[in-house]
Amino acid sequence: MVGYRFMGRAHSNAWRQAPRFFPLKAHIEMHTICGRDPAGVQAARSQLGWQNSSIDWHELIDNPLIDIIDISSPNDSHCEIALAAAQNGKHVLCEKPLAMTVKQAQAMLHAAQKSKIVHMVCHNYRRIPAIALAKKMISEGALGQIYHYHARYAQDWLVDPDFPLNWRLDKKISGYGAHGDINTHIIDLGRYLVGEFSKVCGTMHTFTPERPVDSPAKSAALVPKTQRKMAKVSVDDTSMFLGVFENGALANLEATRMALGRKNHIELEINGSKGSLYFDFEDMNRLKFFDNTNGADRQGFRDILVTQQNGIHPYVGQWWPPGHILGYEHTFVHTAADFINACIDRKPVQPTFEDGLKNQMVLGAVEESAKTGKWVKV
Amino acid sequence: MVGYRFMGRAHSNAWRQAPRFFPLKAHIEMHTICGRDPAGVQAARSQLGWQNSSIDWHELIDNPLIDIIDISSPNDSHCEIALAAAQNGKHVLCEKPLAMTVKQAQAMLHAAQKSKIVHMVCHNYRRIPAIALAKKMISEGALGQIYHYHARYAQDWLVDPDFPLNWRLDKKISGYGAHGDINTHIIDLGRYLVGEFSKVCGTMHTFTPERPVDSPAKSAALVPKTQRKMAKVSVDDTSMFLGVFENGALANLEATRMALGRKNHIELEINGSKGSLYFDFEDMNRLKFFDNTNGADRQGFRDILVTQQNGIHPYVGQWWPPGHILGYEHTFVHTAADFINACIDRKPVQPTFEDGLKNQMVLGAVEESAKTGKWVKV
Amino acid sequence: MVGYRFMGRAHSNAWRQAPRFFPLKAHIEMHTICGRDPAGVQAARSQLGWQNSSIDWHELIDNPLIDIIDISSPNDSHCEIALAAAQNGKHVLCEKPLAMTVKQAQAMLHAAQKSKIVHMVCHNYRRIPAIALAKKMISEGALGQIYHYHARYAQDWLVDPDFPLNWRLDKKISGYGAHGDINTHIIDLGRYLVGEFSKVCGTMHTFTPERPVDSPAKSAALVPKTQRKMAKVSVDDTSMFLGVFENGALANLEATRMALGRKNHIELEINGSKGSLYFDFEDMNRLKFFDNTNGADRQGFRDILVTQQNGIHPYVGQWWPPGHILGYEHTFVHTAADFINACIDRKPVQPTFEDGLKNQMVLGAVEESAKTGKWVKV
Amino acid sequence: MVGYRFMGRAHSNAWRQAPRFFPLKAHIEMHTICGRDPAGVQAARSQLGWQNSSIDWHELIDNPLIDIIDISSPNDSHCEIALAAAQNGKHVLCEKPLAMTVKQAQAMLHAAQKSKIVHMVCHNYRRIPAIALAKKMISEGALGQIYHYHARYAQDWLVDPDFPLNWRLDKKISGYGAHGDINTHIIDLGRYLVGEFSKVCGTMHTFTPERPVDSPAKSAALVPKTQRKMAKVSVDDTSMFLGVFENGALANLEATRMALGRKNHIELEINGSKGSLYFDFEDMNRLKFFDNTNGADRQGFRDILVTQQNGIHPYVGQWWPPGHILGYEHTFVHTAADFINACIDRKPVQPTFEDGLKNQMVLGAVEESAKTGKWVKV
Repeated sequence: MVGYRFMGRAHSNAWRQAPRFFPLKAHIEMHTICGRDPAGVQAARSQLGWQNSSIDWHELIDNPLIDIIDISSPNDSHCEIALAAAQNGKHVLCEKPLAMTVKQAQAMLHAAQKSKIVHMVCHNYRRIPAIALAKKMISEGALGQIYHYHARYAQDWLVDPDFPLNWRLDKKISGYGAHGDINTHIIDLGRYLVGEFSKVCGTMHTFTPERPVDSPAKSAALVPKTQRKMAKVSVDDTSMFLGVFENGALANLEATRMALGRKNHIELEINGSKGSLYFDFEDMNRLKFFDNTNGADRQGFRDILVTQQNGIHPYVGQWWPPGHILGYEHTFVHTAADFINACIDRKPVQPTFEDGLKNQMVLGAVEESAKTGKWVKV
Repeated sequence: MVGYRFMGRAHSNAWRQAPRFFPLKAHIEMHTICGRDPAGVQAARSQLGWQNSSIDWHELIDNPLIDIIDISSPNDSHCEIALAAAQNGKHVLCEKPLAMTVKQAQAMLHAAQKSKIVHMVCHNYRRIPAIALAKKMISEGALGQIYHYHARYAQDWLVDPDFPLNWRLDKKISGYGAHGDINTHIIDLGRYLVGEFSKVCGTMHTFTPERPVDSPAKSAALVPKTQRKMAKVSVDDTSMFLGVFENGALANLEATRMALGRKNHIELEINGSKGSLYFDFEDMNRLKFFDNTNGADRQGFRDILVTQQNGIHPYVGQWWPPGHILGYEHTFVHTAADFINACIDRKPVQPTFEDGLKNQMVLGAVEESAKTGKWVKV
Repeated sequence: MVGYRFMGRAHSNAWRQAPRFFPLKAHIEMHTICGRDPAGVQAARSQLGWQNSSIDWHELIDNPLIDIIDISSPNDSHCEIALAAAQNGKHVLCEKPLAMTVKQAQAMLHAAQKSKIVHMVCHNYRRIPAIALAKKMISEGALGQIYHYHARYAQDWLVDPDFPLNWRLDKKISGYGAHGDINTHIIDLGRYLVGEFSKVCGTMHTFTPERPVDSPAKSAALVPKTQRKMAKVSVDDTSMFLGVFENGALANLEATRMALGRKNHIELEINGSKGSLYFDFEDMNRLKFFDNTNGADRQGFRDILVTQQNGIHPYVGQWWPPGHILGYEHTFVHTAADFINACIDRKPVQPTFEDGLKNQMVLGAVEESAKTGKWVKV
Repeated sequence: MVGYRFMGRAHSNAWRQAPRFFPLKAHIEMHTICGRDPAGVQAARSQLGWQNSSIDWHELIDNPLIDIIDISSPNDSHCEIALAAAQNGKHVLCEKPLAMTVKQAQAMLHAAQKSKIVHMVCHNYRRIPAIALAKKMISEGALGQIYHYHARYAQDWLVDPDFPLNWRLDKKISGYGAHGDINTHIIDLGRYLVGEFSKVCGTMHTFTPERPVDSPAKSAALVPKTQRKMAKVSVDDTSMFLGVFENGALANLEATRMALGRKNHIELEINGSKGSLYFDFEDMNRLKFFDNTNGADRQGFRDILVTQQNGIHPYVGQWWPPGHILGYEHTFVHTAADFINACIDRKPVQPTFEDGLKNQMVLGAVEESAKTGKWVKV
């Protein structure tokens, strides 16, 4: 695995936990964790349960004992590592967004297809039990024809003007701000649950144009304001767009890091001709369902606690009895379990790099629309 | 009508509004409003829309132009006025609790039956559309056999130790505190929705044993604490009891005025063998319904917005289109409309004085249990 | 008053109830109700409590006993009636949207200003106690600089393809569909709470292009499908747009009648540098407030039940004690009470025709954007 | 560790995960898992990550390499194992309820104190971040004097009459039904958050007196009803009681497995003179707080998402960024982490066996009250 910070911790946990709760077709060896800072990666190795550590990802690519490369490093490194991994026949699980540009994403998909590896983008929210249930219900026709996909991904950590610049706010490393980091998630859920985007029209905005420079040695907040080194924020903190799906449904997506009180608020509403669904990640064990076929006097949004046993609700029965809720990290465990089994079977597992590419195309179309002030075809 | 304060205003509004929104079998004349304070009742007459005012309720009883007596005065006056009204053949709508004691309630029922008047206790919450819908659903068997009736009526206006003594806190006038004023409501809803109580075991408590004396001239809070005249609070501010219904369901009721943040919080949960219902008066346009017959993967409490048109939801279609919610006062309008039509038809209309008597018997049994520390048969 | 259907009923109720609950500077005489159908208006007169009825609105304009003209008739009649009323010096309360076009709205404002009448648009939602509280909090700086206004007005009555064409779906009479009927409300709330719109970019959509023709004689649903007379729907059932306010805040508004389960769902979220507010009309007695100045360990959206007494919460103390909730119609009573007092004082009362005009300009700009596919300045 | 089913899985996970997320003062070796069924325990060993397995718990007690005994086996085995472990100087973490009787609990506490081991009862809900925050807030005086503790623990898995008899429904093994299994949890939270119980009055009930016998070989539901072997249910499925705390607060607790739609619903409300708290386990990452010191116009229950970083919210910062919620199993990880560190420091860690004993005394007092129909001192 490459990367050992937030995503590195989440992915490591997934590899450790998957065999404890899911029937896997192979035994997992957590061979090597890789990162650029020698001390950091060494500490992470022991804390997160890896056998070896490395400061050069080429070592992983070249190691014949390693079958899977898990890319959890910053966005600007995804493409190079994935291409090398594919060339050496390693299966690849890559964090989202897949790439920095559509072109990179195309190259990555092409390489993966050519070498016939199993490839997956870590859009972990697809494997929230409530989202997996939503997918099943929509596939079964519970919503009928879909009219609206209304989604908002809101956080508030950039409201503080003293929050320092980090790599996620640097366009050269991250590609986009809220757009590529969180809008990409609700774009993926829209593609998963509703269909392909046909055209979009949006705007991207940066409310705080400069921020104190992040320094590992001391906290920006402790530096007197007059002595602080400031730098330009090169990415958006808000991105929103309207869109039309190929099937005629309308889309309204908004991603922001400027919404006080919203910590990791992913709110989705899907309205169709037979029913509606509502989901909020901060209550991720629940899915709300309005069923138009209920008796007229007793219709209403049904608050489904998605924690029932195996055969009823997806994934969750492998964990605990009904009513005993799951959390954020479980979505990575489910992703890892499905990915491992797909690697053994050498079968595709969604979301593939093709999904990653299509997502990147939507990201790019919104960016273009924000520049031109016009609707853009995806 | 006798009484012109809080309940007087609510009842006057009901008489004014009922003919505007409901098909009534008679025209309503708002003849005379009656109260003890000449200036107060005179002002109320014009503000609330009455033709005449009086300071002696006997004038209303004796007036042949008056067919209906609406008793909204303090509890200690209910019995005497109702007996006199019944004797003169006036139909009577009486505020809850019906009486001060079981004995009084028995006398009132007996007089009403003897004179064949139409008699009704103003348990207005029965005619909240969501409660009327709950009754219909339970009658249709949507819950199956009922196991639990869990109810809590919580307010917070007595948490303030400076809140002055008023008639509701004086046992001689009110009979009980929270017990007779608000526990009586959830007892009534229990009898209405679940069945008759068989036995009870409870406790009544007064957290603030004395309070400043209420004076119309000046606010207690403005009087320096050392000069304040204090008096003993003679009623409970909290009353709670466990119980068993005749049909075997268990009851858990709690009424309190010491629950900060709860303004007029009437929370009911009813669990049966086929489903559950949940209601909260602070969201009185909603009823939550869990239906065990839904598919196993999509069960959940359904949030029914009880605002659909006529023929679907009770009462509410007479008002506004779906989604346009009703408020507190509407329950009195519904009560008045049903009462008027029953008077014309000379048919019983629930809740009758018999309901009032049975309610009083539960109140009395809990009081006895609180004194003896034992279970008491109702 | 002109108009006697849904809005006519709501306005009549307001005139009747206002003097019962609010201190007014004048006595209200409900003189004449006017409508085109002689039988309908005659029945409405007696049901709704008017002294006279008329089938020609010119009679009202010409009657010297009438001081106020309340325009609740379909949109295409607003302008002509208002111009005539202004010319005769009658004060005018006009239903929203003010007019069919920006040009009409300009003429109406001009006439009202010239004749110095008191003029008001009935954007009744401004006088929901929770919204009035939101306005007060924002004015006091509780939110700081505002970043986001995210609003959705969703209904579901057009999901049914058998719902017949009525005047609200006929562009010649209504001007717009969801756009002019409900988007106008959240545009008004945005202008009231956040500021003036600077530019917008939107889209309007009609999911069901034709519907059965409404016939008073028989219900469309009863006519066999093959024999049904269908006609083109000439207005939008969905309208959504992104925007920028003059103060830099971003806007995202969506109005739809195709969202199953949403009956009259008006959801607003406003995020600022110090706090956030959230409101949902289906729980209209509540306002949710996130206060960033609370201790870090105890921040959260605070669920304010806006039902406290006078001096604490606006309007609601005139009605009932805390926790006894209000409903939809009360917003009209508050509007009527404020309007009457403004007429006596001959002082402006918001929202004026100027607000109506500015609203119309936003409606028009979105329409133009929907046609051109570009951002449009307001 | 003794026990490998539901609790065995939860505890094993805790031992595995604690060192990955918390700074521990010792390295954890997961030495031996023990259970009576050889095949079952062998499978559990490898699935759950233990080095060895055993079918005789005496082997663990006698093994000098083992420092800690974790008792997750059925209730009737707790006392014997704990006494033996204490005698051999092993630290003990014991599942709740501590024992079958008050007498057993006293013996266990005595043995633990005598041998100076570290002893802890696994009331894991104390270490839900929201509950730990509630404790902190109450300790700081945020609620003032407490008036009410109103708690309900509701599940629905016994509503199904075909659900077979298992050890939890057999008094000889479990001691109690809902009373000892789930009422014990809300008794513990009451003692933790409010204080010691002074007296109680309650009732215990069994709605379904007999059930099909559980057979490992075939599911009861598949056996034709006429051929099914039925047996008596010897424990309660519902237990509820009123109580008074030593500090004067009132208690109302209800535990039931007959409440359809409630999966693992632990609802607590605590009302005091300065504020109120509300918690629902099915939304376990949230705590609702009403603060009476907020401005009068903006008071309301505040919905605290308890997921902020270290130094703000307890435990949760060791896991993920704000808004990324935790689940059920995390409470065991927190318990294990605190227990390990206490063992190294040889310091007491709440809840101790003394807490377990006091809990058992409340359980016993309610049982006695249910038999005698009277209030019982704890």
